Amino acid sequence: MTFHGMWAELLPIGRSSASGGYRRFAWTGADADCRDWFRAQAESRGLTYELDRNANQWAWLGDPADGDAVVTGSHLDSVPDGGAFDGPLGVVSSFAALDELRARGVEFTRPLAIVNFGDEEGARFGLACVGSRLAAGQLTVEQAHKLTDADGITLPQAMEGAGYDPGTIGPDSERLSRIGAFVELHVEQGRALDLSGDRVGIASAIWPHGRWRFDFRGEANHAGTTRLVDRRDPMLSYAETVLAARREAQLAGAVATFGKISVEPNGVNAVPSLVRGWLDSRAADQSSLDTVVTGIEKAAREYAEAQGVGLDVVRESFTPVVEFEHALRDELARILGKDADLKVPVLGTGAGHDAGILSGTVPTAMLFVRNPTGVSHSPAEYAAEDDCVAGVTALADVLEGLACR
Amino acid sequence: MTFHGMWAELLPIGRSSASGGYRRFAWTGADADCRDWFRAQAESRGLTYELDRNANQWAWLGDPADGDAVVTGSHLDSVPDGGAFDGPLGVVSSFAALDELRARGVEFTRPLAIVNFGDEEGARFGLACVGSRLAAGQLTVEQAHKLTDADGITLPQAMEGAGYDPGTIGPDSERLSRIGAFVELHVEQGRALDLSGDRVGIASAIWPHGRWRFDFRGEANHAGTTRLVDRRDPMLSYAETVLAARREAQLAGAVATFGKISVEPNGVNAVPSLVRGWLDSRAADQSSLDTVVTGIEKAAREYAEAQGVGLDVVRESFTPVVEFEHALRDELARILGKDADLKVPVLGTGAGHDAGILSGTVPTAMLFVRNPTGVSHSPAEYAAEDDCVAGVTALADVLEGLACR
Repeated sequence: MTFHGMWAELLPIGRSSASGGYRRFAWTGADADCRDWFRAQAESRGLTYELDRNANQWAWLGDPADGDAVVTGSHLDSVPDGGAFDGPLGVVSSFAALDELRARGVEFTRPLAIVNFGDEEGARFGLACVGSRLAAGQLTVEQAHKLTDADGITLPQAMEGAGYDPGTIGPDSERLSRIGAFVELHVEQGRALDLSGDRVGIASAIWPHGRWRFDFRGEANHAGTTRLVDRRDPMLSYAETVLAARREAQLAGAVATFGKISVEPNGVNAVPSLVRGWLDSRAADQSSLDTVVTGIEKAAREYAEAQGVGLDVVRESFTPVVEFEHALRDELARILGKDADLKVPVLGTGAGHDAGILSGTVPTAMLFVRNPTGVSHSPAEYAAEDDCVAGVTALADVLEGLACR
Repeated sequence: MTFHGMWAELLPIGRSSASGGYRRFAWTGADADCRDWFRAQAESRGLTYELDRNANQWAWLGDPADGDAVVTGSHLDSVPDGGAFDGPLGVVSSFAALDELRARGVEFTRPLAIVNFGDEEGARFGLACVGSRLAAGQLTVEQAHKLTDADGITLPQAMEGAGYDPGTIGPDSERLSRIGAFVELHVEQGRALDLSGDRVGIASAIWPHGRWRFDFRGEANHAGTTRLVDRRDPMLSYAETVLAARREAQLAGAVATFGKISVEPNGVNAVPSLVRGWLDSRAADQSSLDTVVTGIEKAAREYAEAQGVGLDVVRESFTPVVEFEHALRDELARILGKDADLKVPVLGTGAGHDAGILSGTVPTAMLFVRNPTGVSHSPAEYAAEDDCVAGVTALADVLEGLACR
């Protein structure tokens, strides 16, 4: 089946007619339909279909027991009202690249597999990359058992309800040890390729990122009768800090976002007593991120002090930089560099991926396909057909370079 | 009973030991205790106790049927976790002023009444000044029947539960037509008297005020991967507008507050699609208020346009200026001006009062007592004992000047 054919089959699955976005959440009916599709694609190509102990799906060409396998793939689940490309583009391109390699008549020297990792987006249980985290031992069985969705259904209950055995979940080091290289193709979630005018890029690293909670504490007061000079209004300090975050991020070539806020008492006629804002910030390297966050916090403290407002800053989560393996990255650049028509920039990304999880255990690389708007996690997410084709060709070239002669 | 004695009796009623603030909501047990106290004070002074058709309480000296009565008083209910002074200071001072007039041995030439208006703060049903609004015909019976508290209890049900007859509520023009002057004493809810160094002031007007909803519409996007320049982030336009509101209010000597906000999707890792902020603004006159709000809206539109953000501004409510009757105001100034020790400035206020409601029907005036912090609607609300005494003396002087020879 062609790229077009595969894409057309996936397109209606889990799509909301109301939003036009996808709701393919782990262990739901839409997820099951995606999984049935994956298995059918594997079997129609004569690949050996396998489910691992964490219910990730595998399609093998050659014997995994030979070791040093080359693996490609991505995920099929989505964020709430997500786009069609984030995840599925990598899986569909993997099958299409294998078809192209077979058409080229190459001989495979290493086992090859295509994988669909379960619950990458974490839309249902609030934790991303559950399938790869479990396999890599970055999520313990105890932690996984505590994951609960909005309806109070636990991860084991959800897996069981979907026909999978939750009793087997846990680290899968034997399987991972047989993988020599993992390459994930993904739609870009920014506009770097659009701006550089390239169809395909290679990932250098996943940016370090963190979340900080800023609690601005002022004094609740009557909005009608309290003179401006007598106020200790935390909304002013918050507003100044939102603008400072933008400036600091701009200066450092990073990103910083205040997207979540909570206000007390949140009354129209009341000066707030508390404004709580959450900062999400990411940068190309740790030092830049430190500079951005330190700069924002310093500005916030100055504003708060000048306005008689108290400030507490709490780091709620942090993920250090993930550098993809340099040798594999350089090998991809060398392979793709042979094609004179294709300039392949190396670029970082602010988003997490299964490839980032596996990179601690397995040599891992990523290919990005141009996204002309940069919009992702939205029904407006998009990649042009020509660019998708260029992605398939690049992935086929990479797989040929790594696994064939 | 002395001012001190009355104050001490009221102090424990409806006080939360957790917050130290008052929770005297209409038709609750705490409200009933306050009302019992009012009736006992009336009867202990030989005044004629009356309940009007809207369950406002009256204590009469002389025959109301004589007409041209002088009425003073305020309210005994509170906002959630309010202070001890907002309302009760006016009622306690009224009884204390009557005691002082009797001690002075004056002869009353007009009927005198002390009133406790029900549900002034609107804490339970969301509408302020229900007792005076009903009497003045500014709230229809149909509208009053629709008022519902957070537990789904309607105003008529609440009144009935407290032992009052909701079948009688409605306009009370006959009663109001017998009133020649209404004077309400109130703790100041700002710091004007503290700054001018005066104990007591006369109200000139209640500032015009309104509420405007600002809907900033941007584009939801991934906070990790969307470049700053590709964002249409409504939080930035909101933050700029919060600061613009402060500047415009400052320039006009007015107040402007963004105290309530609602964000979609309100996720830490998402650029918001919608930031909805509510502006409360008040100024000494209509033209100043127009200048402030027009200035804020203009600035908001410029920011939004520059950031690719859409903006809708909706005026949700508006109350024009309430000018207290000039003749009565000048009469108060003349009476109080006789006391060489007491300088009595005339000042505006940003807060609503029963006196503001009645001013459309009855010649009305207000006296303010100094609040050294300006804090109101908070357990920290305060007036010094000396200033409360000065307030009682001023009120007694006014009542003597108006109703005695």
